[in-house]
Amino acid sequence: MKEYDIIGKPLPRVDGIEKVTGQAKFTVDMAMRGMLFGKFLRSPHPHAKLLSVNVEKAKKLPGVKAVITRDDVAGIRYAFVDTPRYPADETPLAVDKVRYIGDEVAAVAAIDPDTAEEAIRLIEVEYKPLTPVFDPEEAMETGAPDIHEPFELGSKTEWEDWGVRRDRRALDWRDAKNLSGRTSVVFGDVEKGFAQSDYVREDRFETKATAHCALEPHAALASFEPSGKLSMYLSSMGIFYKRFILAKALGLPISRVRILKTYVGGAFGGKIDLFPYEFCAAFLSRMTGKPVRFELEREEVFTSTRQRHPTIIHIKTGVKKDGTILAQKTKFIADNGAYRGSGAIVVYLGHAFSIPVYSVPNYHYEGYSVYTNNPIRGPQRAHGSPQIRFAVDSQIEMIAEELGLDPLEIMLKNARKKDDILPNGDVLKSCGLSKCLEKAAQTSGWKEWRGDRAKRTQERESTSRYKRGLGMSACSMFSGAPFYPFASSALVKLHDDGSVTLYIGATEMGQGSDTTMAQVAAQELGLQLEDIRVVSGDTELCPIDHGQFLSGGAFVTGNAVRLAAADAKSQLLKLAVEILGADEPDLGTKEKRFYVRGNSDKSVAYAELIQLSVQRNNGNPIIGKGSMKAVQEAEFYPSLAKAKGHFTDAYGFAVQVAEVEVDTQTGLVNILKTVTYHDCGYPLNLSIVEGQVHGNVSMGLGQALWEEILLEGGQIQNPTFLDYRAPLATETPKMISGMVETRDPGGPYGAKEVGEGSISGILAAVANAIYDAIGIRFTRLPITPEKVLEALTLPLSPKGKGKV
Amino acid sequence: MKEYDIIGKPLPRVDGIEKVTGQAKFTVDMAMRGMLFGKFLRSPHPHAKLLSVNVEKAKKLPGVKAVITRDDVAGIRYAFVDTPRYPADETPLAVDKVRYIGDEVAAVAAIDPDTAEEAIRLIEVEYKPLTPVFDPEEAMETGAPDIHEPFELGSKTEWEDWGVRRDRRALDWRDAKNLSGRTSVVFGDVEKGFAQSDYVREDRFETKATAHCALEPHAALASFEPSGKLSMYLSSMGIFYKRFILAKALGLPISRVRILKTYVGGAFGGKIDLFPYEFCAAFLSRMTGKPVRFELEREEVFTSTRQRHPTIIHIKTGVKKDGTILAQKTKFIADNGAYRGSGAIVVYLGHAFSIPVYSVPNYHYEGYSVYTNNPIRGPQRAHGSPQIRFAVDSQIEMIAEELGLDPLEIMLKNARKKDDILPNGDVLKSCGLSKCLEKAAQTSGWKEWRGDRAKRTQERESTSRYKRGLGMSACSMFSGAPFYPFASSALVKLHDDGSVTLYIGATEMGQGSDTTMAQVAAQELGLQLEDIRVVSGDTELCPIDHGQFLSGGAFVTGNAVRLAAADAKSQLLKLAVEILGADEPDLGTKEKRFYVRGNSDKSVAYAELIQLSVQRNNGNPIIGKGSMKAVQEAEFYPSLAKAKGHFTDAYGFAVQVAEVEVDTQTGLVNILKTVTYHDCGYPLNLSIVEGQVHGNVSMGLGQALWEEILLEGGQIQNPTFLDYRAPLATETPKMISGMVETRDPGGPYGAKEVGEGSISGILAAVANAIYDAIGIRFTRLPITPEKVLEALTLPLSPKGKGKV
Repeated sequence: MKEYDIIGKPLPRVDGIEKVTGQAKFTVDMAMRGMLFGKFLRSPHPHAKLLSVNVEKAKKLPGVKAVITRDDVAGIRYAFVDTPRYPADETPLAVDKVRYIGDEVAAVAAIDPDTAEEAIRLIEVEYKPLTPVFDPEEAMETGAPDIHEPFELGSKTEWEDWGVRRDRRALDWRDAKNLSGRTSVVFGDVEKGFAQSDYVREDRFETKATAHCALEPHAALASFEPSGKLSMYLSSMGIFYKRFILAKALGLPISRVRILKTYVGGAFGGKIDLFPYEFCAAFLSRMTGKPVRFELEREEVFTSTRQRHPTIIHIKTGVKKDGTILAQKTKFIADNGAYRGSGAIVVYLGHAFSIPVYSVPNYHYEGYSVYTNNPIRGPQRAHGSPQIRFAVDSQIEMIAEELGLDPLEIMLKNARKKDDILPNGDVLKSCGLSKCLEKAAQTSGWKEWRGDRAKRTQERESTSRYKRGLGMSACSMFSGAPFYPFASSALVKLHDDGSVTLYIGATEMGQGSDTTMAQVAAQELGLQLEDIRVVSGDTELCPIDHGQFLSGGAFVTGNAVRLAAADAKSQLLKLAVEILGADEPDLGTKEKRFYVRGNSDKSVAYAELIQLSVQRNNGNPIIGKGSMKAVQEAEFYPSLAKAKGHFTDAYGFAVQVAEVEVDTQTGLVNILKTVTYHDCGYPLNLSIVEGQVHGNVSMGLGQALWEEILLEGGQIQNPTFLDYRAPLATETPKMISGMVETRDPGGPYGAKEVGEGSISGILAAVANAIYDAIGIRFTRLPITPEKVLEALTLPLSPKGKGKV
Repeated sequence: MKEYDIIGKPLPRVDGIEKVTGQAKFTVDMAMRGMLFGKFLRSPHPHAKLLSVNVEKAKKLPGVKAVITRDDVAGIRYAFVDTPRYPADETPLAVDKVRYIGDEVAAVAAIDPDTAEEAIRLIEVEYKPLTPVFDPEEAMETGAPDIHEPFELGSKTEWEDWGVRRDRRALDWRDAKNLSGRTSVVFGDVEKGFAQSDYVREDRFETKATAHCALEPHAALASFEPSGKLSMYLSSMGIFYKRFILAKALGLPISRVRILKTYVGGAFGGKIDLFPYEFCAAFLSRMTGKPVRFELEREEVFTSTRQRHPTIIHIKTGVKKDGTILAQKTKFIADNGAYRGSGAIVVYLGHAFSIPVYSVPNYHYEGYSVYTNNPIRGPQRAHGSPQIRFAVDSQIEMIAEELGLDPLEIMLKNARKKDDILPNGDVLKSCGLSKCLEKAAQTSGWKEWRGDRAKRTQERESTSRYKRGLGMSACSMFSGAPFYPFASSALVKLHDDGSVTLYIGATEMGQGSDTTMAQVAAQELGLQLEDIRVVSGDTELCPIDHGQFLSGGAFVTGNAVRLAAADAKSQLLKLAVEILGADEPDLGTKEKRFYVRGNSDKSVAYAELIQLSVQRNNGNPIIGKGSMKAVQEAEFYPSLAKAKGHFTDAYGFAVQVAEVEVDTQTGLVNILKTVTYHDCGYPLNLSIVEGQVHGNVSMGLGQALWEEILLEGGQIQNPTFLDYRAPLATETPKMISGMVETRDPGGPYGAKEVGEGSISGILAAVANAIYDAIGIRFTRLPITPEKVLEALTLPLSPKGKGKV
């Protein structure tokens, strides 16, 4: 396949020096003259009526510039999802009730953080406690307390809302309470499929809430000019989405809101939503006429921003003897906590991350997002995919075990292939899944280890303290999806000294977007990386971008950048043709010059052509423009997600293997090695792609083995980095990461997603490896040493056999 | 003539609230974490060899982060003019010599201003004093010391450089020393003209250096990102010009320099040049890796930024008995001080501000800019025009006196008219000069007062202590001229909620540019002023602009804005035609909707059309683009000023009358009233136009009567606002300002310049009024009470008659 000069290479990051020298500025580093400090009073109750909020004493404290409550922000609602069917359910400050421990009740702006803190303590609140509910299945029951006013979910139009093919038959849990959203997708005839199957099994899986663990705490600095314009520094994943939702909440035209992104110290999905601290910073700045900064404490980040959805997943699968999947029925319950957050989305995505991996002719999926009095949940890296892949691929192994097959065989037999058309109409224009399976098996020594069943059983039942095992799982991820603002643009400005500025609205949040996009522009223009200066992260400076959601950065923005650079180059080329008096095909480029092939003396510098163009165009430099929708067939405006059922224009794939060693005396699971084979189409920057895979694997291992937001009565028990057990750098195992290049025809140079896919296979890979090692099936994550040890000593499983 | 809704109205300024509430941020208000403070060591000698600079002690002072001298900036040169003919002669720090008292010798960056100051005192410099020269005529003499290395001025190409018609005949002062630039323009046959004249006279006039008196001191804050990008806040009049010259001086591509303008507290021409404090802020920031701020002391602003050129002007004029001018020969000498600054430009502009006012068939102009050991001079409001208008119109009165004519008659007889073609080819597509003369005479009661010569003589010779007089002068000014970057662009972005952002690279520096440009956009789009949000003053955010030089703001940028808004509207209109199914001419606009005339139920909102467009264009809002060259026929790139001899595309005109009362006992001149009639084509904002005229008049009065940089041995004697006598608000006389609307066909809605023209007539008007009052002709400015009193008591002029 074609090789390139600039892309594909492991070039160093354009923002590297800023970061390693500690000079990169984050939102908490931003300060302004006269700046006030914001703090929240938060609810100590998981569920209570809010009787009264008295702020008189707080207001009188010297140094306090403003105190706001529900009275100040009456009528303001916003939410991640805000549609006629799913009306916004969040308020900047609690109105009638508080719904979780940490719910914002009042906000203060004061001249320093200590004064703000003291003012918070002076606010008097009367609550009337209400019965809380923390378990999603209990919340769905008839007798459960209503957390929100019930609203109408079921209607005919519900079935057409997302535009995918559905069945109008009744949902299993039609009358469940406290639903914040639900999805049903049916194709084929699942009951007929089960009837035709040789083997059918049903299992229940559970995953827990996990934290994003971005090292940078959530913060915002809002500054309202007296003339009514807001400038806002914040740590975001999509500045145009923030502008849209914030302007709407504040009742301002878009033109009066400017979002400026500073460096972002990690996001992982946890910085998409509009948060009360952002709204209140802006609101208090408008009120006081001063800049206002909110910076959440680490505990607040844990309790009051977002977490990954804990899920309960029931899967019933029917297969033929040879492992061919005939039917699958899934019920996916996500506990979204006190507000909907992205609940309605994650239970929709559950099937979207299921159907692109294995071909299932008869399929029935039901998704339920449920209100509880737990903290709010939102997107987290791969949003729903780790959960569904954990359930599906754990069960594939269980089926393989029962049928006496190698699970790799089942996976290969059912794996989606290039040119497959998914039930929603998406076409897999590239698909390296089978190749990933083969490569991952080969590199991990799968056949050598798992091929000999007798040896495996012998090893498992031996008396040795340490038992080794190998597990595998496959997954898939979008390369961008329809989400406001649905498309990305790029501008390439050629300056009259030959230098180039690339303007993108994309958000560099550590994933290397600025570097990768500069590489695309340099490649297309025939320049070096250092010739391109990237300007990003400013809604006023940069063209629109769909944001860093669902991994569309390389595919969508990358295409926009490539088109913009090509546009700029074509303008140059036209002039070169004129100046050199040669035809286009006869021109080559080298060292920022066009030359006539075979007559390299006849050449003209880019800079000269730019200058000529400037002369002809009233001083304007050449500007190349490019733009790209996230999904080509989407009619995305003005209502959300009119994508005609399409999810994305390109799917990335990954297959992951974990090799573990279980210490049967302590229950500790030691990861010896992970192997990831990834089809991201084409790696625009090899180092960055590898970094993404490593980050995904590390995060996946944490969530498989240790990570869990521990809740008691709605109160988080481990809201610190000391108590919340995220993997440390020193615990990183050997990670092998390999590419399967498929060069998607729609991607820039063939590139697809890489930022989220490879977290999702790790969970089932680890669970399967542990089963391989000790013969115990864990269906609830995380698989902590306590659980392993307990399972090993269970009376029902003296030889370590069982399901936990 | 056509009336408009938004333009022409005295609407309040869009930046008014920021300013009156004190919330507008100026460069000195900007601070950054870890910022260092910069200071200069300046030369105490007017002319000396720089033997050694020892910074060892200064470097060792705790808190000092960097000390730089000539060794650090070796080879770096820049200047306002930097062409093969006029090579750059400025260096960031003195190299071989110091050339004026205040010349920068070394710069320090330290953690606070006191430490920086102390470090400056620890620098040891050895100088070897050289003979200085302060008088420009002495500097031109054969024996004068060379201030710079002599360079070749005369060559054949010299005559074509500016592209205007010239004569190759020898200049009068061909062999003068210390010339930094010279100009010669000849048309007709001036000697023949004198021979045909009935009356010929020759006079010498002198004007002095004056200060700009911007209340905001010069300052810059530079911040270099480690990756090599400079962001720079500074107080500027043209951010793209600053970017161009600063990038070049630093050896950086344009794409790595971002100039951000804060609010500007006055400029008046004094903030165009690249200054050592700007260069050194950037250089020291790159060196230390920290932000560096320089803020000049008021004394430094006086001594080491720029001043208006003091001039010596010889004019010889020949007229017929009826006052018709037949020939004029001018020698214009400008003392540009130690470095060229804009010397070569001001001696060029001398003729350009002369020929558009009166028709002179035979003309010979010679301009000489001369190096001295005085402080550096640069542009100041109307750059050369006040000087030449003072000389020309003082002499017109002297001629009138001798011929027994009313000077108004001479002015009217010779005044340029619409459709006149100037010798350089410029066509006066609009010209209200005669109308201005008539209106000014009428409003000031000219004929009643000056018509009765006997009464005037009687009054003048009476014994009354207070004598009144009336004087008049006319002037003209460009509406923009070719100066890097030669053109302006504007972008109008229509957001999907119907709000509008206007992006302009123009500089709001107090003149009301943001407001006026918003009015143009609102008018063109059929919106209200509050619908438009202006973004300006950021080279990265805004499209290119030619800068606020030579009064092109309204004309050039205004045209760009109008075109951009029209472009945006035409995109909307096309959609409206489609949606409403009506033809373009049948559509009207009202309240942000298009409607079908005669069927106003059939309408569509702007916002809906924008949304539709967004849907069709991958999420991009509608963007309208417009651009305009300063001079349409200019081939301005890549070498400067290839304007085929053209100066500008539209001339503004003004006629000014001063009514004075001279106290013959004290010499005090009291201004009773000024009358200004101004042809600015069409006033885009009446209040702003009036404000510009009032500001001009006030500044002109100061320079006529009081203002002068006092120098002794090259040392400024009055470098403070206490000692430098600028007019106070309380000294503002009654100012009458009237419009003569000519609606220039090339201007946006007919607008031309208004920012500089009406300073230039005031000087001669005052001198002529004083002559009218007491019969003494002052040919040297300022006409201070001391000079008046001295003249009144001169033995040669017992009745107050004479020439001083």
